[in-house]
Amino acid sequence: MSAEISAQPAVLRDTVDSLMAQREEIAALARSTRQVLFIARGSSDNAAVYGSYLIQAHAGRLATLASPSIATTYQARVDLSGVLAVGLSQSGETAEIVDTLAWARDCGARTLGITNGPGSTLTEAAELTLVTRAGPEVAVPATKTYTTQLAALAVLALGLGAELDPDALRAMPDAVEDLLAKPTASVDRVVERLSDVHGAVISGRGLAFSTALEAALKLKEACYLHAMGLSYADLLHGPIAVVDQQTPAILVAANDGPTVEGTAQLARRVVAAGAPAFGIGGGAALADACDLAIPGPDLPEWLAPIGLIVPAQQLTERLARRLGHDPDTPRGLNKVTQTS
Amino acid sequence: MSAEISAQPAVLRDTVDSLMAQREEIAALARSTRQVLFIARGSSDNAAVYGSYLIQAHAGRLATLASPSIATTYQARVDLSGVLAVGLSQSGETAEIVDTLAWARDCGARTLGITNGPGSTLTEAAELTLVTRAGPEVAVPATKTYTTQLAALAVLALGLGAELDPDALRAMPDAVEDLLAKPTASVDRVVERLSDVHGAVISGRGLAFSTALEAALKLKEACYLHAMGLSYADLLHGPIAVVDQQTPAILVAANDGPTVEGTAQLARRVVAAGAPAFGIGGGAALADACDLAIPGPDLPEWLAPIGLIVPAQQLTERLARRLGHDPDTPRGLNKVTQTS
Repeated sequence: MSAEISAQPAVLRDTVDSLMAQREEIAALARSTRQVLFIARGSSDNAAVYGSYLIQAHAGRLATLASPSIATTYQARVDLSGVLAVGLSQSGETAEIVDTLAWARDCGARTLGITNGPGSTLTEAAELTLVTRAGPEVAVPATKTYTTQLAALAVLALGLGAELDPDALRAMPDAVEDLLAKPTASVDRVVERLSDVHGAVISGRGLAFSTALEAALKLKEACYLHAMGLSYADLLHGPIAVVDQQTPAILVAANDGPTVEGTAQLARRVVAAGAPAFGIGGGAALADACDLAIPGPDLPEWLAPIGLIVPAQQLTERLARRLGHDPDTPRGLNKVTQTS
Repeated sequence: MSAEISAQPAVLRDTVDSLMAQREEIAALARSTRQVLFIARGSSDNAAVYGSYLIQAHAGRLATLASPSIATTYQARVDLSGVLAVGLSQSGETAEIVDTLAWARDCGARTLGITNGPGSTLTEAAELTLVTRAGPEVAVPATKTYTTQLAALAVLALGLGAELDPDALRAMPDAVEDLLAKPTASVDRVVERLSDVHGAVISGRGLAFSTALEAALKLKEACYLHAMGLSYADLLHGPIAVVDQQTPAILVAANDGPTVEGTAQLARRVVAAGAPAFGIGGGAALADACDLAIPGPDLPEWLAPIGLIVPAQQLTERLARRLGHDPDTPRGLNKVTQTS
């Protein structure tokens, strides 16, 4: 997992370089559609949350998440004309995702796949595929396959006409590289504080909500931590009660943009409730509001989630070892999960 | 909270009786639309998950959940022509929901509100409103306002042309009444087992996924339990690692239908991983696979979530008292949550 975390700048560079040329194919496929429907599970589902916010905030299209069991369990027919269905599977072999994408096509949708598996079954089910260049991933918790999926989703948004700077996406791998070159003392301090907690709430707003969900999944998978990923608003709507001395909050935000101030306010509310608050990113505003903070990437808000997950991956890897677990092979999990 | 749990059969009867007459208005409003977009937070968001599965499985329409921050934080324009936007707010005064529904209308959507607040701001923002008849709810954790929302969503599905039996919905309050009249020894046994755990995973599949999410929210709100609500597939995609002796799984299913066998299989997998499994509903198949089981309602699968949440409400109320908390007024929470 550690080696795969470090490999991210290189594989992100390869992925962006190879996928940028597909923007016109994406535009052509999407021409007869008006909205996006993501089909995914697990880490890929968290990537889809990023894609959903990105496309809605910047490409003027509705973009929401499908419930695969409508296809697989209920075998229902739903009118999907005008829909671009986007199936995400790192292996490209998760039958539930492949089957649901095929169902979407039968229901009238145009189909696009995003996978790290060239030649996988997903590439056969989709009309167009964006193949990420993460290379083989050995550790069970996804790291580089996740961030390259986010990069593919950023290309998708550009292909759908998002008014965002393609050069910022091309420069993104450098920012991830810079982040990985930083001293990790702040990560280690948070690892120390998390080593004897009973659970944690991880929250973020807007685009960074995807990072909160993915960080929570990593901490559940590899550290067996009771990590609850919640949106900013949902955290206030009830579960704020769950934070306490033994249940800190980890709050994630880009260094600037419309979510920083709200996230800092949430940190102050967590601290006022008597619980520790740890920040990832969010610049000085979030760091000032938190007990401890880990610097985030120097990226514009729309690309920040690609870098913000990196400190959470480091945190997961180190906390797992600190707790005596092997982060590469968590108990009870396989690399390709089949759900039926 | 206890009195409000007991009031549910009566207020469900009132709600169904008064809303069934609005099916034609719903059909007229929806005529120019092809899909549903739910706008909600907290318990209302869990109700929307029920509505989303119900409408997709039985009314042939795409029905997904909006991200309110696209409207409120990003102030983005999204093409919502052909969309029926459905805003859910128990009070009808949560500004984020009212504002997002108004935004949806500006973006081209037709709008419908579901609220327990007649004359509330939400009723002014929506073209048509379904007012539930739960009456005043005093306890902070929503119970009767939640189940009456589910009843309104069942009426919505019928108004959208779902091929389901309206008489089954009319008879539903009797089944909830029968369930409440049953001995609660099985609830108390699960309370006892949950009184010293570190956390719990709550899972359900298809329509019952909404119940898992809502049960997890109740247990977080009132018992401060680290309750992680996860779909069946997402639980297998990683977080199955988190269950152990001190982290049981609570599994929810209707007594019959296409999800029972998968839920029973999941229970067997949890038990094989060395963790306790407690069932709610799921008939003999789920009860046999679990360490302990609480009977569910005698309702068809499409209505089962209205009754399945009731044992989880009882569990929450009793566990909170057992742990020395007041379930009516959890720490840090107000009845109307404003998120901005």
